[in-house]
Amino acid sequence: MTTALKGNAVIGQSGGPTCVINQTLVGAIEAIGRMPQVGKFLGARHGVRGIINERFVALDDVPPDTLEAVANTPAAALGSTRDKADQAYCEKIFRVFEKHNIRYFFYIGGNDSSETAHIVNDLAKQAGYELRTFHIPKTIDNDLLVTDHCPGYGSAARFVASALMGDDRDSASLPGVKIDVIMGRHAGWLTAATALGRRDETCGPHLIYLPERKISEEQMLGDIDDVVARLGRCVVAVSEGIVDETGTAWAETISQNVERDAFGNLQLSGSGALGDHIGNLVKAKLKSRVRNDSENLPLSGATRIRADTFGYLQRSFPGYASAVDQAEARLAGRKAVEFAMSGDTDGSVAFQRTGNGKDYGVSCILANLADVAGGTKTMPDEFLADNGHDITDAFREYALPLVGGLPKIGRLT
Amino acid sequence: MTTALKGNAVIGQSGGPTCVINQTLVGAIEAIGRMPQVGKFLGARHGVRGIINERFVALDDVPPDTLEAVANTPAAALGSTRDKADQAYCEKIFRVFEKHNIRYFFYIGGNDSSETAHIVNDLAKQAGYELRTFHIPKTIDNDLLVTDHCPGYGSAARFVASALMGDDRDSASLPGVKIDVIMGRHAGWLTAATALGRRDETCGPHLIYLPERKISEEQMLGDIDDVVARLGRCVVAVSEGIVDETGTAWAETISQNVERDAFGNLQLSGSGALGDHIGNLVKAKLKSRVRNDSENLPLSGATRIRADTFGYLQRSFPGYASAVDQAEARLAGRKAVEFAMSGDTDGSVAFQRTGNGKDYGVSCILANLADVAGGTKTMPDEFLADNGHDITDAFREYALPLVGGLPKIGRLT
Repeated sequence: MTTALKGNAVIGQSGGPTCVINQTLVGAIEAIGRMPQVGKFLGARHGVRGIINERFVALDDVPPDTLEAVANTPAAALGSTRDKADQAYCEKIFRVFEKHNIRYFFYIGGNDSSETAHIVNDLAKQAGYELRTFHIPKTIDNDLLVTDHCPGYGSAARFVASALMGDDRDSASLPGVKIDVIMGRHAGWLTAATALGRRDETCGPHLIYLPERKISEEQMLGDIDDVVARLGRCVVAVSEGIVDETGTAWAETISQNVERDAFGNLQLSGSGALGDHIGNLVKAKLKSRVRNDSENLPLSGATRIRADTFGYLQRSFPGYASAVDQAEARLAGRKAVEFAMSGDTDGSVAFQRTGNGKDYGVSCILANLADVAGGTKTMPDEFLADNGHDITDAFREYALPLVGGLPKIGRLT
Repeated sequence: MTTALKGNAVIGQSGGPTCVINQTLVGAIEAIGRMPQVGKFLGARHGVRGIINERFVALDDVPPDTLEAVANTPAAALGSTRDKADQAYCEKIFRVFEKHNIRYFFYIGGNDSSETAHIVNDLAKQAGYELRTFHIPKTIDNDLLVTDHCPGYGSAARFVASALMGDDRDSASLPGVKIDVIMGRHAGWLTAATALGRRDETCGPHLIYLPERKISEEQMLGDIDDVVARLGRCVVAVSEGIVDETGTAWAETISQNVERDAFGNLQLSGSGALGDHIGNLVKAKLKSRVRNDSENLPLSGATRIRADTFGYLQRSFPGYASAVDQAEARLAGRKAVEFAMSGDTDGSVAFQRTGNGKDYGVSCILANLADVAGGTKTMPDEFLADNGHDITDAFREYALPLVGGLPKIGRLT
């Protein structure tokens, strides 16, 4: 039995928010309330930036009904940040931690954020400051190492899978070529989830392009042409991060005004440029090849070419989160606190799957911060179809339990 | 008591689908099953195009569980069309109607579609063909004349109101300027609905631009600047149909490759061009005026500028329809059949509001096809704020009952 480390605790939220990042926050708040060794529990406004500016919110006495409402609200209730904590930044953090006797640091974030936590933790160790640092994963991209999946992914996956179920019916109503651009910088997890609601091979998305597989403009146009010839229409799900045959991101080639964030990441979302580019390609190069036969439905409609970029709705749409994702995100927050109080340890909370299908479940383990920090987990080959534009049943089996149910679609034809 | 007109019936769906257009279809199917004077009930594939091509689906024996699943599925289960029935087109329709002894024609659609129904009906009268033609309204744009509101609007309004509630929290997490482009060609009803989830004046959308009010680039930039100065961030909801100070659509000016449909309408959706244009404007002309003060949150984040174009999700997202809208759309289909069987009449089904707030309800009346055909109902002045960029409490009172409830948002700060 270790001696309990007494002191205050701070929690922050970082990176792109999700629909359940506040479930994790509330899970931690609820758990820490039961820990006598913790004095004050402070919420940092806008992550590490709130720490260095000493912008804190007291989390000790938030009424339970407020907590419950916050848990069900998308985005970061404490505010988020894109700041990366370098050496100098972390020294500021230490001074604040010392000043406020902060001994427990919980940081909810993605892979950029786990790296931040790792740096802060290492600097604390070097400085001989006894600090227990815990990264709690969140990302709709599902691209963190070690963990089976990431809190936030299931809800975003539910959103895009549902969206494509409706969009496919919309496309069947007014046939044409429809391009849907989905978030996911380096990994195709979220774009792959667009397929989860398909029930037969006539259902869209008919083509799925992920960053894990190079795709040339020529190949994509040929694929679309084939689907239109077969079905008279084509719904395409494209990751914002797709790369061409040379390995260059399509978005990079397209963008004349490249904006990068503090981590050097290209701005992919918040712009319709990639979707419009693909739509224009189809219009220019494929339209002439599409039959326009007014007597022969639905091919006649296939000259209708549209592109949607789903954008921030994927991570922020309220009232439609996955119940599984919500419960797991809450669990991750609670477990981080329990790990923190269990002894002299630090790390990143990770899920291990304990069963699948009807027996689906997870347990929480503690991963090394170094094993999670900065790394990206792309989709394994077993989840990617050989044809280069689809997912496999193995992926479906992996992802379906996470979305917590999908709407029922009815058809007359 | 009139003699019952015996014959077959046909129903079609036209124009841009909604989340509840199949509720109307199923309402009509259920009602017509109880009418002994109707022989076969045929569904036309892809609206009038399916009629002239004799592409019909038998609707008499669809199992109830299939009907219920179809009712809850977005988009047109029979397929839709953008075809406009001119004189020659309608003569083809008559020949098909005579051949199949069709005496009841139900056409579910928007304002373009009510005009189609009106033309078909007039030609039937001129030809001495006894036909009962009923237009049943549907449009997420809510811009049909006579009716208090249109089936389809409530669900789309619920989607965009919810989306902005989440997007506002996302913007509060990572402050900046966020542009959201909402569907609505000539009327601002749907864009106005983005405000329905706001609970105080810090909540976005902070600025709302509708086609009913001219807005110059300069004025919009000035408005955004003011909000950023006050709140450190700004969420803007923009109708795709906004017009500049000369009355020209922004989209028209921007688009170098204008695509028009058979009705001569400019393609506004399925492209991120307008949102990207506004985002680029803010970046170019406003960014330099935004303070970037790392010690002063949240103003520091306001150089983050993003644009989302909500696109087809607004009319096709499944599992999130307004229960009020669903029930009313079903009612409209049922009532159309009851009107059709009540005597020698024709017309467009319209809602009259029988109460508001907690007493909200509607009854159905029959409007003249001529009074609905082709016209557009824009938002009245009482629903538009004097400042040119907001809606009024009167609009909120009008629209809130239609969305059937919104998510609860919780905040810590």
